[in-house]
Amino acid sequence: MERVYTKDLKEAAGSKVKVAGWVDVRRDHGKLIFLDIRDVSGKVQAVVLPNHETAHEKAKELRSEWVISVIANVNERPEKMVNKDEPNGAIELEVTEIEILSKAQELPFDLDAELKLDTYLDYLPLTLRKPDNRDVFKVQSEILIAFRHFLNSQGFTEFQAPKIIGDDAEGGASVFELEYFKGQKANLAQSPQLYKQIMVGIFERVYTTGNVFRAEKHSTSRHLNEYTSLDIEMGFIQDHLDVIKLTTKLMNAIVSHLEETCAHIFEKRGVEIPLITKHIPHMKLREAQEILKKEYDDELDLSAPDLEPQHERWICEYVRKEMNSDFVFITHYPVEKTAMYAYEDESDPGYTKYFDLLFRGIEIQSGGQRYHEYDKLVAAMKRKGLNPDNFAFYLQAFKYGIPPHGGFGMGLERLTEKFLDIDNVKRATLFPREINRIDTLLTKQNEDKDEKDKN
Amino acid sequence: MERVYTKDLKEAAGSKVKVAGWVDVRRDHGKLIFLDIRDVSGKVQAVVLPNHETAHEKAKELRSEWVISVIANVNERPEKMVNKDEPNGAIELEVTEIEILSKAQELPFDLDAELKLDTYLDYLPLTLRKPDNRDVFKVQSEILIAFRHFLNSQGFTEFQAPKIIGDDAEGGASVFELEYFKGQKANLAQSPQLYKQIMVGIFERVYTTGNVFRAEKHSTSRHLNEYTSLDIEMGFIQDHLDVIKLTTKLMNAIVSHLEETCAHIFEKRGVEIPLITKHIPHMKLREAQEILKKEYDDELDLSAPDLEPQHERWICEYVRKEMNSDFVFITHYPVEKTAMYAYEDESDPGYTKYFDLLFRGIEIQSGGQRYHEYDKLVAAMKRKGLNPDNFAFYLQAFKYGIPPHGGFGMGLERLTEKFLDIDNVKRATLFPREINRIDTLLTKQNEDKDEKDKN
Repeated sequence: MERVYTKDLKEAAGSKVKVAGWVDVRRDHGKLIFLDIRDVSGKVQAVVLPNHETAHEKAKELRSEWVISVIANVNERPEKMVNKDEPNGAIELEVTEIEILSKAQELPFDLDAELKLDTYLDYLPLTLRKPDNRDVFKVQSEILIAFRHFLNSQGFTEFQAPKIIGDDAEGGASVFELEYFKGQKANLAQSPQLYKQIMVGIFERVYTTGNVFRAEKHSTSRHLNEYTSLDIEMGFIQDHLDVIKLTTKLMNAIVSHLEETCAHIFEKRGVEIPLITKHIPHMKLREAQEILKKEYDDELDLSAPDLEPQHERWICEYVRKEMNSDFVFITHYPVEKTAMYAYEDESDPGYTKYFDLLFRGIEIQSGGQRYHEYDKLVAAMKRKGLNPDNFAFYLQAFKYGIPPHGGFGMGLERLTEKFLDIDNVKRATLFPREINRIDTLLTKQNEDKDEKDKN
Repeated sequence: MERVYTKDLKEAAGSKVKVAGWVDVRRDHGKLIFLDIRDVSGKVQAVVLPNHETAHEKAKELRSEWVISVIANVNERPEKMVNKDEPNGAIELEVTEIEILSKAQELPFDLDAELKLDTYLDYLPLTLRKPDNRDVFKVQSEILIAFRHFLNSQGFTEFQAPKIIGDDAEGGASVFELEYFKGQKANLAQSPQLYKQIMVGIFERVYTTGNVFRAEKHSTSRHLNEYTSLDIEMGFIQDHLDVIKLTTKLMNAIVSHLEETCAHIFEKRGVEIPLITKHIPHMKLREAQEILKKEYDDELDLSAPDLEPQHERWICEYVRKEMNSDFVFITHYPVEKTAMYAYEDESDPGYTKYFDLLFRGIEIQSGGQRYHEYDKLVAAMKRKGLNPDNFAFYLQAFKYGIPPHGGFGMGLERLTEKFLDIDNVKRATLFPREINRIDTLLTKQNEDKDEKDKN
């Protein structure tokens, strides 16, 4: 018999089905044994009656998280027993056979309890099963589907960027170092930036999604040492406004897709689908600062090269109120605050054709137009104190002709976090890597080792 | 004016268009200047006549790989000038305006020349532009599209697997080590295996695509130190045959998709679309050995725990001839040759419910059923000399109930290589990492450094 997912049981009322999943909870009411069975698609209540003797005997053994497969009749519940809050609240399974697929040990805590972050992380293989937690990663997977689907429709080609890179490129303090061969060190890529620019020479419009690595020694609700970066780069643009236009369409496509596929998750969590407009507003940093000074903070330094976190929150609040959008592009950061490849705006010297996309009070995306002229790029490297010789491979793309181009990078986990209004990016990351933890706490691991050494 | 891609020019015959791309080649015939303009979608021949003076002056400057945008009339060629071998062989652009978007330096070699592998790799930002090379990665991107599309249609959810892992798990000699925090070492993941099994507890059916790392000290046509692994894992299976069934459908979906989207690439390269059957044949290792002994090699040791490369080629040859398939599953490798989580077949003790998928003479996929029972898995770890304490995080998935499950891992680059019958996996990898090279040759890098130290 083919297995039926719990989400499809309503249509099977009156028939005999096979259902498989986890025992979410078992409750005994005298001789009646009630089971909530959970699968990937939802839950259903099942009852095991004493007259199905073999099944009833097996049911007595069952505990939370045992994996079972049952044969059951799908019965409609009497009117007064219908639970309107549950998708399967109008039916109940009457179990006639049980097969135990896998047993489980006693749980360390009730899965429905509020857990401290550390406990949640210590037990991810278990805690992720809770539907509220699982939902976060369902949304995450749908963001990716929408991202790729939209870009494929716009003539973009996906490519695979390497993660092991030479130890001589962008570098900086926050880079992980590894032992390569021949006594050489290598680094883990902080972004696919240089490769996606090279790829503009091959496919004109490209995207790549993959892990990137930051060896930042912070443990906060915003930091991750490994995250998923969604990156695009597009050639033959006029300037950064072409990137902003495409990004606007992309963010609209993502929001629409989430509305179609995940509205129930937003509703269940009490989170609004973001406000987005057909033309996401954009303003220069200096315009944003003027607004902030006038509306929120008369102490604000108009010559500051960036927005403080509180300013980002305020400008988002302002844009939502005045322009009906949860998204806003801030453009034209000063040359000294942007990367070496950021294109200086000839019509606004000292500022770059770069942008941050702010969403619900935080930057979720950085991008803009890059230098495509070899000489300008080399000069910009030197201004930043970088040695062009170390970028010889990358510079080939420019030496041999590349069109005007730009793009952006966006962290998938932070985007998921802000979409669902979660308080910590680690809860929007499946297996977060941070200064104290690789799955298990590092210090704990050390202690264990010390323990072992003593024995 | 909106830019028109060269592939769409045929429909624009008789009208004025804007075309942008690279100068593939310039040829002067007296006062006529001919340009082949290349964009991501193809090429077109353009002519600049002396009567368009400004354009003609600019055209004199142009050299290979300069990036230009032109305004031109799309003229039909006279019958006798039609080139039937070229997609745009029936038209020609008459250029009236030229905008130079980017200049290029003189090329180090003719892009159409046959290049040695090292030269090809040294100049990837340039050599990848050659349409024959670019095509390989077009096929690669289409394999991914087909892979995800099929799995999404089968109820699979994508997840992001971490690449930084603890230094205490599967490990082995071929693992890259990195400096983490607090004086701890970490490793780069050789596969997402443990995480995808954990994820079966969350989403039942999952897949992930991403970079994996092998610190193998080999420089051959088959080895890569970083590659893209396509991984799936599915719960609620009966046994490995369910994985084989799904994989069969998936490989059929990929082949069909390539036939639809990339037939012209296969044709241009003179490579056959693979033969694939609705039911890919499968046989036990011992059955394959019997066939090989009988048909190809009467010296073959029937108790060998694996197939030699030559045996893999022969058995593929045999299956193609006798069963009309370029694919064959070999199952039931001995317990000692398979990973600790490989499920031993109760009905065939000493052998596992594991398989390799061979394709055109080489293994492209490994998979099978894994242990889902906590006790059996712990016992298997101990038999392999592994310490279960080091797997405590992973083991939670089993401690707290997980259904019978299985899956496979498959290297995207090797798959691309075999689909297109390429002689070296490095030519099917965008930016291959190998013992001697991270973009540039490591030794060369060293020499450069030595040079600098002296100065």
